[in-house]
This record gives sequence, C-alpha cells and structure tokens, in this order.
Amino acid sequence: MNTPLRLGIAGLGTVGVGVIRIVRAQAALLAARTGREIVISAVSARNRDKDRGVNLGRYAWEDDPVALARRDDVDVVVELMGGSDGPAKATTEAALDTGKDVVTANKAMLAMHGQALAERAEAAGRMIRFEAAVAGGIPVVKTLSEGLAGNAVSRVMGVMNGTCNYILTRMEAEGLGYNALFEEAARLGYLEADPRLDVGGIDAGHKLALLAAVAFGTQVHFDAVELEGIDRVALEDIRHAADMGYRIKLLGVAQMTARGLEQRTAPCLVPAASALGQLEGGTNMVVLEGDAVGQIVIRGAGAGEGPTASAVMGDICDIARGTRGTVFGQPATTLAQAKPARSALPAPYYLRMLLADRPGALAKIATILGEAGISINRMRQYRHDDDTAPVLIVTHRTTPAALETALAAIAPLDVLASEPVALRIEDV
Amino acid sequence: MNTPLRLGIAGLGTVGVGVIRIVRAQAALLAARTGREIVISAVSARNRDKDRGVNLGRYAWEDDPVALARRDDVDVVVELMGGSDGPAKATTEAALDTGKDVVTANKAMLAMHGQALAERAEAAGRMIRFEAAVAGGIPVVKTLSEGLAGNAVSRVMGVMNGTCNYILTRMEAEGLGYNALFEEAARLGYLEADPRLDVGGIDAGHKLALLAAVAFGTQVHFDAVELEGIDRVALEDIRHAADMGYRIKLLGVAQMTARGLEQRTAPCLVPAASALGQLEGGTNMVVLEGDAVGQIVIRGAGAGEGPTASAVMGDICDIARGTRGTVFGQPATTLAQAKPARSALPAPYYLRMLLADRPGALAKIATILGEAGISINRMRQYRHDDDTAPVLIVTHRTTPAALETALAAIAPLDVLASEPVALRIEDV
Repeated sequence: MNTPLRLGIAGLGTVGVGVIRIVRAQAALLAARTGREIVISAVSARNRDKDRGVNLGRYAWEDDPVALARRDDVDVVVELMGGSDGPAKATTEAALDTGKDVVTANKAMLAMHGQALAERAEAAGRMIRFEAAVAGGIPVVKTLSEGLAGNAVSRVMGVMNGTCNYILTRMEAEGLGYNALFEEAARLGYLEADPRLDVGGIDAGHKLALLAAVAFGTQVHFDAVELEGIDRVALEDIRHAADMGYRIKLLGVAQMTARGLEQRTAPCLVPAASALGQLEGGTNMVVLEGDAVGQIVIRGAGAGEGPTASAVMGDICDIARGTRGTVFGQPATTLAQAKPARSALPAPYYLRMLLADRPGALAKIATILGEAGISINRMRQYRHDDDTAPVLIVTHRTTPAALETALAAIAPLDVLASEPVALRIEDV
Repeated sequence: MNTPLRLGIAGLGTVGVGVIRIVRAQAALLAARTGREIVISAVSARNRDKDRGVNLGRYAWEDDPVALARRDDVDVVVELMGGSDGPAKATTEAALDTGKDVVTANKAMLAMHGQALAERAEAAGRMIRFEAAVAGGIPVVKTLSEGLAGNAVSRVMGVMNGTCNYILTRMEAEGLGYNALFEEAARLGYLEADPRLDVGGIDAGHKLALLAAVAFGTQVHFDAVELEGIDRVALEDIRHAADMGYRIKLLGVAQMTARGLEQRTAPCLVPAASALGQLEGGTNMVVLEGDAVGQIVIRGAGAGEGPTASAVMGDICDIARGTRGTVFGQPATTLAQAKPARSALPAPYYLRMLLADRPGALAKIATILGEAGISINRMRQYRHDDDTAPVLIVTHRTTPAALETALAAIAPLDVLASEPVALRIEDV
C-alpha cells in the first residue's frame, strides 16, 4: 500500500458533505480500488459552527480556503465553493502554485478562466479535474476525453441543467405557467443564488463550453455561447409542442462546422418519443457524436449530494491511482482558438404567431415564408374568442438566417397581435 | 513529445482494420491528445493475401501472432482474433511475459481465463484493457471502474448482444417468427461462427461476467451465469407483451445480494416506454446503479468496425498517456470469490399458458397460483378456434421459487395444452 492521498476540502455545502460521507463510508472500497488510503486532512468553509450532519472534529479547520490550499499535509485540493472568481479561483491558484492537484465542481470558474488555469496547472505539472462540473453524476468528461479519445468529435449536446428540465417537465405535467414553477423551484431550493444562472441558460452554457473544449481541442470560450434561457417559454408552446409530438427542452449544443464552432443553449423542440424527449425532472442527458463510435447517449442525475460527490470521487480516485493527464484532454498550450460561428446549420423550426384580425393575414405570412425559401411542413390555425388567431407552423429544414429574414419582413406588416415565437427543432 | 507507442495488431478482421484506419486517419489528433505518436509496427492474421481494403505494406507481417507478441518493436499487443483459448490466449500470455500491455476485444477469453490472465499481467506489471469486449463502442468498463469508483455498485444490467436485439426488434416490427429472423441475421453476417454464442445468451453472459467482476470486485465467474437465450421467444409472446405495453429484450443482469452474486441473461419484459424498451436493432444499452450516483444509463452501438475500434483506441490512448492500473479495477489477487446465488429477487412475471378444453381449468390454475402466494395483477383470456384458450397473466411481484413451485404443481394437472411460458418483468 502506498502512502495515503490527503484531501483538503474547501466548501462544505451539499457536495462537500457528500464527499466526506463517501470517503468515510467507503474507505475500504476506495483503498482496494486505488491502492491508497484516501484521507481528509483539512476542511474549510465560511461558517465553522453550522451543523452539517457530519462530524468534522477530526479534520484541521481553516477559515481561509487559500490557507487550506497551501497546507503541507494536503495533496489534493477539492474546490467546492463555487463562483467564478474570488475565493474559488484564489484557492485553485494557491493549490497549483504549491504543488497540489485540484478537483473541482466549479463550472463557472473554468468557463471563465479555464484556459489560464489549465496553463498554470500544466506548467506546474499539476492537474485540474472537473468531472463534477458538467452534468452531475454523469462521467461525461471522462467518456469524452478518454473513452472516445480515438474519435474526431462532431457534436456534443444535451440537457445539462436539471432545474430548467424540472421546470419544463412540471409545466407540462401540471399545466402551470413558467412563473408558478419558477416560484416552486425557488421554494424547493433548486435555484442558484442568482437564478439567471439556471433559467437564463448560463449554467448550461458554462457546461457546454467546457465540453466543447474537450470535444474539439479548443480553448474554452464561454463568451461565444449563444445563450437563451427558458424564461420566455410559454405554457401554450409546451402544449402545442406536445400536441404535435414534441417536448421542449433546454438544449446545449456545440458543433464544429466549416465556418467555426457553434455553441448555443436554447429551448428546442425534440421528439417526445426520443431519449431527450423522455427526460424527466432533474435528470441530465448528454449526447456525444464521434466519427468512429457514432452516437453515445448517457443519462444520469444532474445534481444532488450523491451524484455530484460521485463525480468528485471519480476524479480523486484517478489521482490516487496515479493517473496523470491534461486538463482539457490535450496540453492547454496546444488548444486551438476556435472561430466562433453563429448558428447557421439548417433545422426544422416551430413557429407560433398570433394573427391580428386582418383579412389576408395568413396569406401574407405564407407568402413571406415562401419568398425566404422556407417551406411549411405542418400548419394549424385556431380561432380565439377575441378574434385573434394563433397559427402554428412546423417548417421543413431551414437556416436561422432565412428565418430571421422572414420574421423581419413579417414584423412591419402589422398582421401579428404579439411577438412571434420561433423554436428550433433539434435532430436527436 | 515522448517516444512513439508501437502497436502489434493480431487479428485483421473488421475491428483490426478499423483500428488501423483510425491510427492512420487520426494520427495528429491522437498525438495531440496522448502526447505520443501512435504507430503500428507489425500485424498478424491467418491469411496474408486477403484484400482488407487497407495497405499493410508498411507493417512487418507475422504469420504467428505469438511471434508478433514477442517482437521487440512492439509496446502494446492488440489482440483482436477472438476465441477463448488457442492463439488468442497464447498471444496474450506471450505479450505479458515479454513485457507488453495487451488491449483486447476478446470477451470469451477473459470470461474463461480473466482471473489467471489478470494475475499474470499484474505480477508482470502489465495491463490488460478490454473496453471493446463489452458493449462495443460504449465505454462502460471505464465508466464503471473509473468514473463510478466512489460507488458501491448494487446492480449492472443491460442489452449487450446487438444480434439478439436485432432479431427481437425485427420479429416485432415484421411479424416474423424467430426462425425467419435467425436466417436473416445469418445472411447479413450478424451471427458469430457458432450462433449459440449470440442467440443462446452466451456472448451476453461473457460480457455480464466481466462487468460483474469490475462492479463488485469479484473474480470473473462465467460458469455461474444463469444463461437463457432468445431461441425460445415466440412471436406471440412478443405480440402479447406489446399489447400490454412491454417489449421483450435479452437482458443481462448482475446483482449483489445478501445471498451472493446473481448473474443471469434471459429474455425479459421491460416497459415499452422505458429506455431499454425503446432500444432498437443492434444498439446496446447498459444500466449501472451505484449508491452515490444512482442510475447511469448509456446507449451506443454494440458492434461494428467503428464503434469497436473506438473502444480499442480508448484503451490504447490511455496507455499512450501513461495511465496504469489493474485489469478489473482492483488488484486481481484481492478480487473476492463471490458466492453464486440463483435468482431469487422477486419480480412481476408474464405467464402465457395454453389451456386445454377442460371445465374449471382456469380456476385450478388460479387456485394453485394463489396457494403459492402469487397474486395476479392482470389477466386476459382468449379463445382459439381449436378450443384451446391462451391465458395471459401478469403477476404482482413474486419470487422465482414461488413461480417454480406453482408451475410444478400445475404440470401434472393435465390442464395445459403446451408448456407454459414464464418471463420475468424487469424493473428498469
């Protein structure tokens, strides 16, 4: 048996406590699997006196996570504080600078500073592992960077924010509007302190940017992610989509094209019978597409104490076993700067327009769509009591640019009683 | 850049050729990701003159794979010949004995000799990696042994023989019987040379035994797998199952219980709307359940050149990166000998009985089921023109033992016109 691997845990929220629980409960299993005892030397959190349901008495306490990172009796700093800057970044840097590996669940930090931190780690011969930062318990970073290392990856996509998926599936199941479900999610503690991180698609965008870097060998470029959240998804769109055999999911999609790297998070329609369409509640799903392997789909819990701690422990066990490697699957200094490309790949679209009560309104719209080269696959029109008429259109494959052109041409016609809704239908 | 990693490839069938294609086409990508050039030094196969669609002229040729394994210019032997004994085993042993790592897709060899080979490898400080042996392109061995290393695993299960799944889904889609689809699969080259390996559940059993070893830290024990294939699945059971919202899948299930380790492959009913129920054609799916992570489900291609070569390349890339480790996730000498347990966990069952035309036949059967403590969830009875009456029963959860007792008590009553069919309904 080798010397023990000594952890310093910075951040004692749900995940930190989960890691402590596993290290204790599975000590024998972990030692058998890794060939080393895994122990906790020290912990750090903001509030020393909080009852976290685990006895911390046997671990050294540091008020300052940076001091924890610098301790001589720590081999691996487990950064579970969150936040893109501030203590998390300072702690990570202090750990790397004093010769420790870092395991983190911090998607925001890596999405903003991943390139600089990876270069810093690799210059120091250290690792940053971040399985827990993407899709909770799903070992997608490992699958992509190691399992599929023989593949040229063409696309990664998935539902990677459980809170959004929870809200969307509850809206459909309960027939309640977005605001009601947002309140419910807040009450249940499912939302980040800044809820825009969840419902604005930012959190999913952070994760997507990290996956894209691993998938395509490119520098993390979060600012290039086209971000759209779920806050504008209306209950009636969920209902109409369901009527036509679709579900609305907040999808993150990263795709390498001849024009550059497309990265986007947006509510999309997916077939209700597809694996993504059937995804309920807080579960996450990632879809990986490689030239050799074809399509790999992985489903698992996207958050929570156990699943996230499981991902953290996977990284810790790799380090305990002596696995070394780069942060993003190849040396940070060799990661290319991908040219960001706006979404241009054609797809079918779902359109909902509320026609004003004008003669010939529908004809005008159909004409403009035709002139933009957009052909209609399915159309339904209803009539409301107030004389407005909702029109639902599913187009054949068309480009976002053609759609923009058409919508821009429709706007000044004064035939719509409200803003049109356009949602991409994603091939899955 | 480090020295190149030099491969010797033994076996130039579909997968061997796929590996050669990837090594050539992705040379730059592989070098970027692993930090080493990956090159092929030598190849071996039975027939040197066969046109395989790739130019082998630049590689040394060995008629004898054992000689290939012993070459000084080979670092990793890629064993893709198959067969549990004979050349594959001799080649693997020669490779380990002369200081090479082995990457193999050979489930039969490891299912029969995994423990001895793992001990031999680890005594020599060498590795055997076998991602491609289980579920084709799905990196399930890596997910289980590394990604979920922090979990006590409770159950692994899945559809791991694409040929069986192809036959079963085609039976349902085309309304054709087993024999017709068996012929079709043979014609398409989907069957192993010995088709019992596929349709008898043996191949799925090999894979299950390997996964169980990794999941539970136990020695591979293929002989303890309860094997049942798909050759007795009748078209009418597929139809009846569909009518009741189920699909029939050949499931491999390994589960640790207080009584010991259950391992079985058998045709089971799964909900048609479940992920397993929706699995079409040659696709594979594995379900992994751990105490921390909950349930992870992975879907991907179970066979074919690209997917299997992708799995082989994942292992090769790990070795190129310097990853070291044990064969089954912990040292072979520490793997426990699990006590085999016959399936005893309760489950609902699907029963189909063909009643002879006797007064009170159904009452007798219902009485016996009741006496065995088996309660009926749903029942349907039809009447055929020939006066036999098929009865379909879905039971509530019951044990295999209770079911056996009941069926044994029904047999001598002379109320059945044919053997009853009993299929487990698996919770997924």
